Amino acid sequence: MAKKIAYLGMGIMGRGMAANLVDAGYDVTVWNRTPGHADEVVAKGAKLAETPAEAVKGADIVMYCLADDSAVLDLVFGDWDLLGALESGQIVVDMSTVHPDTSLLEAEAFAERGVRFLDAPVFGSKGEAASGNLWIVVGGPRELYEEVLPVLEPLSETTHYMGENGKGAAMKLVGNLIVASQLHALGEAMILATKAGLNPRDVLGVLHVTDFKSPIFDGVGAALIERDFSTYFALKHMLKDANLIAQFAEDLNSPIPATAVIRETIKAAVNKGWGEENASALIKALEEQAGVQVKAE
Amino acid sequence: MAKKIAYLGMGIMGRGMAANLVDAGYDVTVWNRTPGHADEVVAKGAKLAETPAEAVKGADIVMYCLADDSAVLDLVFGDWDLLGALESGQIVVDMSTVHPDTSLLEAEAFAERGVRFLDAPVFGSKGEAASGNLWIVVGGPRELYEEVLPVLEPLSETTHYMGENGKGAAMKLVGNLIVASQLHALGEAMILATKAGLNPRDVLGVLHVTDFKSPIFDGVGAALIERDFSTYFALKHMLKDANLIAQFAEDLNSPIPATAVIRETIKAAVNKGWGEENASALIKALEEQAGVQVKAE
Amino acid sequence: MAKKIAYLGMGIMGRGMAANLVDAGYDVTVWNRTPGHADEVVAKGAKLAETPAEAVKGADIVMYCLADDSAVLDLVFGDWDLLGALESGQIVVDMSTVHPDTSLLEAEAFAERGVRFLDAPVFGSKGEAASGNLWIVVGGPRELYEEVLPVLEPLSETTHYMGENGKGAAMKLVGNLIVASQLHALGEAMILATKAGLNPRDVLGVLHVTDFKSPIFDGVGAALIERDFSTYFALKHMLKDANLIAQFAEDLNSPIPATAVIRETIKAAVNKGWGEENASALIKALEEQAGVQVKAE
Amino acid sequence: MAKKIAYLGMGIMGRGMAANLVDAGYDVTVWNRTPGHADEVVAKGAKLAETPAEAVKGADIVMYCLADDSAVLDLVFGDWDLLGALESGQIVVDMSTVHPDTSLLEAEAFAERGVRFLDAPVFGSKGEAASGNLWIVVGGPRELYEEVLPVLEPLSETTHYMGENGKGAAMKLVGNLIVASQLHALGEAMILATKAGLNPRDVLGVLHVTDFKSPIFDGVGAALIERDFSTYFALKHMLKDANLIAQFAEDLNSPIPATAVIRETIKAAVNKGWGEENASALIKALEEQAGVQVKAE
Repeated sequence: MAKKIAYLGMGIMGRGMAANLVDAGYDVTVWNRTPGHADEVVAKGAKLAETPAEAVKGADIVMYCLADDSAVLDLVFGDWDLLGALESGQIVVDMSTVHPDTSLLEAEAFAERGVRFLDAPVFGSKGEAASGNLWIVVGGPRELYEEVLPVLEPLSETTHYMGENGKGAAMKLVGNLIVASQLHALGEAMILATKAGLNPRDVLGVLHVTDFKSPIFDGVGAALIERDFSTYFALKHMLKDANLIAQFAEDLNSPIPATAVIRETIKAAVNKGWGEENASALIKALEEQAGVQVKAE
Repeated sequence: MAKKIAYLGMGIMGRGMAANLVDAGYDVTVWNRTPGHADEVVAKGAKLAETPAEAVKGADIVMYCLADDSAVLDLVFGDWDLLGALESGQIVVDMSTVHPDTSLLEAEAFAERGVRFLDAPVFGSKGEAASGNLWIVVGGPRELYEEVLPVLEPLSETTHYMGENGKGAAMKLVGNLIVASQLHALGEAMILATKAGLNPRDVLGVLHVTDFKSPIFDGVGAALIERDFSTYFALKHMLKDANLIAQFAEDLNSPIPATAVIRETIKAAVNKGWGEENASALIKALEEQAGVQVKAE
Repeated sequence: MAKKIAYLGMGIMGRGMAANLVDAGYDVTVWNRTPGHADEVVAKGAKLAETPAEAVKGADIVMYCLADDSAVLDLVFGDWDLLGALESGQIVVDMSTVHPDTSLLEAEAFAERGVRFLDAPVFGSKGEAASGNLWIVVGGPRELYEEVLPVLEPLSETTHYMGENGKGAAMKLVGNLIVASQLHALGEAMILATKAGLNPRDVLGVLHVTDFKSPIFDGVGAALIERDFSTYFALKHMLKDANLIAQFAEDLNSPIPATAVIRETIKAAVNKGWGEENASALIKALEEQAGVQVKAE
Repeated sequence: MAKKIAYLGMGIMGRGMAANLVDAGYDVTVWNRTPGHADEVVAKGAKLAETPAEAVKGADIVMYCLADDSAVLDLVFGDWDLLGALESGQIVVDMSTVHPDTSLLEAEAFAERGVRFLDAPVFGSKGEAASGNLWIVVGGPRELYEEVLPVLEPLSETTHYMGENGKGAAMKLVGNLIVASQLHALGEAMILATKAGLNPRDVLGVLHVTDFKSPIFDGVGAALIERDFSTYFALKHMLKDANLIAQFAEDLNSPIPATAVIRETIKAAVNKGWGEENASALIKALEEQAGVQVKAE
């Protein structure tokens, strides 16, 4: 019999993942604070619960991918009291990007109720969530990871076991440090190229083939030169992640001199009012400093 | 009849390229300040000249890939007086990484003698030079680019026409900004991961597949965790390039806040005495600041 | 009749302030976790209490200047339960450097018990605490500030009313941003001067008179060139403050690009094991990057 | 008999210094590319020459304080050919802020003609030049320094002998590193204070008294909160100086991580079009990033 899955939170990421779980044949119940967001998934065959407690009742696995640490804490420990609604033997998989300490807090609280827990944040955004091509990095007991793996497969291109609880969350922050770096370097490079009179499209052609190429340059670069900042991964979330990275690096007293500066650029872009645009809008903050725009010729 | 090519300078890059030109059937004459470096290429069938003037006599195309601007200026305008040795109708292709103004200086001086000129620096290092898989970015008259293209093909995976003279040199600096960024981000990320108790090998596994992956992470990352800093592209050359990028960004008053900080890390690594090691040794400067080393477990 | 003052915590700062309060004729009771630290103040005439509760019994004003936020939270809300020991009508003055939110937390908790509260952190270190020449920045109700002012006078060169609760704490962080900047700039400058072959003593002579002079350059500079890093204000506390500044700037999304980089230097110096030395030891981290030392000739 | 002095270049700085030399009783001849700028000094009693050659004829000492290295090179070696106009036994004092290598170039060229040379750049701007309160830092032979000292006295509050030629220029760059740092820190601090709801005037009150106080905070701070960016020292010149500092630190491979970031802020402010405003306008670039303005309440 198909496993019963409760998916809580129908944001941009949750919707895509829940839909793929339905498609994969799981018995999926979803919940969202504002029910409308779940329509599409419900149309595919998911059940709609009115509360987290209702959603998780009888579920084998409970999953969520929320905006930030406070949303997670609010769901688990706050008014929604997910913790109180769970029963011994259930499994929780938190796919949000949060501080590893938040993962550990969840792990401990759940353990006290006999609930097993994985921190399993994802790389990729809207597109990969919808197509089931996320990259998932997982922390928790290895045998639990292996038990849950089949459920992660319809969601992901690859999954990676990183170690005990908190290690999935840690890997996510480590990876996002690189994402931020790639976006910022692309901005500096494309602006310098523009000022130098290079054709931005030709520059992207070079970035597409060399040994420093990266898929992110192709996607973001193409959108940039078309001045398309529609949101796959919101800049405000990238600021949140940059803040988490800074905090994590502070906790470990680990030097991140370039990332520290990159965070300041993201701050500036959010102060400009671009928080709801795509994360690549941080490049617009660099353009402000440069007095030019990168555009297709 | 096969074109006659003079290749001046048998450094790590020049040797690889000259050998590939011999293999491709060109009639190649090489020259190096210290003759020993040319042995291998001569063994393949290249002729050895004792001076640049001797090497370029009768050549259709003259190529060189030197260490820095002053080496180029010294060859062209200094005691070696390449400029004086050339004759109207010859073609010069400078594959060195230099400031675009140096390219323009060459272009103008050559033009006055009826010599046509391309700035054509290359991405890739020792390995790609040897295997003929460089990525070449070219500035100069388009018809000259097209005329020379067949000669560049045995050297390269791709070649890119970037515009008038100086635009090849400019593209090289733009690209190297990204290379520096990636190496630095890899360092910050791997150190943070190490401090967080992640297995470096597992982290590289993640960096190998996500949409922020880059071939550079694979190659440099694998060497890093084995503590292998043997030289493909020397750190001292990366410092030179970082300095060129800073100068170019100064000329254009283009903001490069992260790259500016990254240059300081490279300075520190060179001050530590690692200038002859691979460019990835900049990560060791970050490790000094962190008090940890990234190592395979 | 002289006001009764309880001074809690006999660290480097508390000892100096309590002694000055005794000298000014106040009836002072002190407490410290480890009693030995209070010997000198007790010898001057202060009473020694065994617990915070004992110390504050009957006190008009309760003061403390602790190492960090967690020490404050521990004293007020933790096992020491200062909050429970206080009575309506008493006044608390927190002179620690803490996040403004911690001050607000204290203010609210105290208010519920009828206890009035000032956040009143101090600029200056060991020397100024001992000589009663601190600069005190105060947040809280203005009339309470005026009421407490006479008690602050024996401790300070100047006191400054900054606004409601939390504003004293905020001003402290704003000021420490500048302190960090000056120490770092002094380091960069003295190292550059050393590499340029200037006599460090002559450089300090210039810094002593120009319009960018600052007392901090005189004091720290003189110690630096004698390689004297004995502790007035410990580097580990400066790291704590840099972390507080970063957090506060994050809360307000305020850009601090230079301070962000400076924090990374402080991290490196602490990772080198210099946390117990004077804050000026951050310059040693820059020296590591430079490969030179600044020394008197 | 009073010494004859030729002062070349009647910019904001040269005018003030020439006037003070006239007032001190020297026989002063001035020259400026555009004669109008000299009117005030001529009215005081200076002679006006039509060319540098005319101005320096018979002068004991030749002085100039020009905008940048290229202006100096142009005067000395270019069309104006100061070098050719000088005679053995004359003394040249260059008060411009230039790269130490430019000073060395001048020193060598002059020495070949039997002309003695001091590099003697000045700290202070419009106001100090007018009132004769500059701080002068001098490189060159010590006996020449002592010989020229009486002439520098009417111009300066203090003069400082820094060592052989080039050391005055080096000290100037070292000092300007600190000036840039002070301005940037003031900007970060005042913006953070503004976002924190502190009264900017109260903050300046604190900065006026603590051990991190500096005259620069008083002057620039007061103007800042009145939104007064009228020019004492133009931002475009500060950018020039920041570029010189970066170049000098590159030459010596000396790490300046904070100053490197500060240079990027100055770039941004100049790109905004504020190059002709006061150097403090760099703070407006930080305000852009912050989305607030610092203003008197």
